[in-house]
Amino acid sequence: MPASMLTDFHAVIPAGGAGTRLWPLSRRKNPKFLLDLTGTGRTMIQATVDRLAPLAGADNVMIVTGVAHGDAVSAQLPEIAAENIVCEISPRDSMAAIGLAAALLQHRHGDVIMGSFAADHVIHDVDTFHDSVRQAIAVARAGYVVTIGIEPTAPSTAFGYIQAAELLGIEGASDGLGVKQFTEKPDAETAATYLAQGNWSWNAGMFITSTAVLLGHLKEHQPTLHDGVVEIAQAWDTDARDDVTTRVWPGLTKIAIDHAIAEPVAARGQVAVVPGSFDWDDVGGFDAFATLLEADEDDIHVLGEPHTLVGIDAKGSIVSTSTGRAVVVLGIPEAVVVDTPDALLVTTRAHSQQVKDVVDSIRGRGSEELL
Amino acid sequence: MPASMLTDFHAVIPAGGAGTRLWPLSRRKNPKFLLDLTGTGRTMIQATVDRLAPLAGADNVMIVTGVAHGDAVSAQLPEIAAENIVCEISPRDSMAAIGLAAALLQHRHGDVIMGSFAADHVIHDVDTFHDSVRQAIAVARAGYVVTIGIEPTAPSTAFGYIQAAELLGIEGASDGLGVKQFTEKPDAETAATYLAQGNWSWNAGMFITSTAVLLGHLKEHQPTLHDGVVEIAQAWDTDARDDVTTRVWPGLTKIAIDHAIAEPVAARGQVAVVPGSFDWDDVGGFDAFATLLEADEDDIHVLGEPHTLVGIDAKGSIVSTSTGRAVVVLGIPEAVVVDTPDALLVTTRAHSQQVKDVVDSIRGRGSEELL
Repeated sequence: MPASMLTDFHAVIPAGGAGTRLWPLSRRKNPKFLLDLTGTGRTMIQATVDRLAPLAGADNVMIVTGVAHGDAVSAQLPEIAAENIVCEISPRDSMAAIGLAAALLQHRHGDVIMGSFAADHVIHDVDTFHDSVRQAIAVARAGYVVTIGIEPTAPSTAFGYIQAAELLGIEGASDGLGVKQFTEKPDAETAATYLAQGNWSWNAGMFITSTAVLLGHLKEHQPTLHDGVVEIAQAWDTDARDDVTTRVWPGLTKIAIDHAIAEPVAARGQVAVVPGSFDWDDVGGFDAFATLLEADEDDIHVLGEPHTLVGIDAKGSIVSTSTGRAVVVLGIPEAVVVDTPDALLVTTRAHSQQVKDVVDSIRGRGSEELL
Repeated sequence: MPASMLTDFHAVIPAGGAGTRLWPLSRRKNPKFLLDLTGTGRTMIQATVDRLAPLAGADNVMIVTGVAHGDAVSAQLPEIAAENIVCEISPRDSMAAIGLAAALLQHRHGDVIMGSFAADHVIHDVDTFHDSVRQAIAVARAGYVVTIGIEPTAPSTAFGYIQAAELLGIEGASDGLGVKQFTEKPDAETAATYLAQGNWSWNAGMFITSTAVLLGHLKEHQPTLHDGVVEIAQAWDTDARDDVTTRVWPGLTKIAIDHAIAEPVAARGQVAVVPGSFDWDDVGGFDAFATLLEADEDDIHVLGEPHTLVGIDAKGSIVSTSTGRAVVVLGIPEAVVVDTPDALLVTTRAHSQQVKDVVDSIRGRGSEELL
């Protein structure tokens, strides 16, 4: 075990969500977290595990995913033991997923520190990320629910924000701050105000806490949800797993961890934030590819290997191809071309966020097999 | 034989040119004239023969094409006898092609009226076209080289123009006019002047003349070219064809019929024009598809059968697909998407004419197999 590994730290990776804004690259059967979106040869979830294993050890990384993706996750992550790939029989939102992981960890290991991290985000500056997680763990040991906030680089309206309070002065966590409040995605004017005030960070959905603290808050704020995940966790490693899960899971309250715990607990001063200065991207649309993928000599950002790629008057375009065809973009700056074997999307970076409307339109036409 | 058929009229269809402005739909091996660009189930050359056979009879239609396309032309046109599919061993421009056809017809049939028509133009109003050709034949019988001019609908800079002189008053040709001059493609200002003057028409490259008249002009203005095609024609239907062709054809002057005959003969008052009021399109780029193909409910003009086609904020777009994939265009009005098994082009109607630059670029990158 490397010296930097933390014996009682467990990483939990909820891996759900199709990523409809990345259609037709991401599909229900092949969602964003299973894709290599950075051209590095590692998928999003592989890169997430690569990032967390040095802190937790591969044995202490748990994936919570949909039953439809269990086999693909196992195949992509041979280093993760089967017992740490937890398959949900249906999606019940993030609190059920993270709550079940917390209850399972508590049942198997007693009270440990757990950190929950999305399976489909990109972080290159791993050393700084590790430093933030270590600080967050130190704060979590002091009993807080800790989030890692991302230092905003622009007044984005695509993310929720976290407003920090005073420094907590916890040893090993020089950046640890109290949290005044969480807010939902703001409008542009509000976002600009946040950026000017300086004590706001983006909510990247990272939560670090002890399992006992988390389950305690869950018991208080969502008692039936708490009891449900605890009951399932106790049966999970036994023959009763399927019976109990089938009976209990579908009735669990569908709620995000932000609403179930982060917001009410923050109101009581028991949430902390460690602002992270590492790069971070949630790849929330094809426009993100412009920063994730290097540009070629024509200033085209390429994912995949086109036979030939020609860009004329097409600066800043994004081309993703998995068909090995020649691709030509002529006269459309910042075009987005996503070429897959059964579907082709042509749009612009400015329209990237509307790709979810395309998915709605295709569903409306009954072409479910394309989704 | 229908009553309207003209026993001594022969239609000649030079079928050459790759149509690089329609890449990647048209290729060297599958050029424009072999493609169905109107979604009617008939290729350009099939439609051309369909249009001319009622006048000439299928037995009197001759195709002049490159040796690489002879088999494809035969396969598409089973009604054309093998002896009427004339294959050039190399491209020597339109005068050599039409001159050889004239010499062959003269050698086989004596002096007949021949009309030369491009293999890759679109005309829907066939009755009016037939009327123009009949008038042109009447004028040709009077010894003129006759062209059918297209009444301009806009000050196009994409075509050469023909300036008409006085009415000739030839029986059966009430629209037959003398020709003052041919001009090359004008600039926009000049084209607007032509349109205002009213006695100009577009040069669609249609020439109707007796073979004896054509060969006489050719002998006068391009004597070595004349002697070459006559020598080849005399050997064509004998065992000496290959020997003579191989020896003579490669040395023939490369010149367009416009420069070789139409311009000098017009200067002497021996060219006539019949202005045609039928619709006509040379499909000189993807922008032409907007008028050739009906628009769907999203106002997308479609060639081929996409699995699903979604256009959002993409009015007036053109989508051509031969892969059967789903195609989505989002936020690019008047986009042009050409989807083929090995190459994909994304551009706009405004950039259609620059597609030839793409072909140059691909050649420059050494990807000849895509051309």
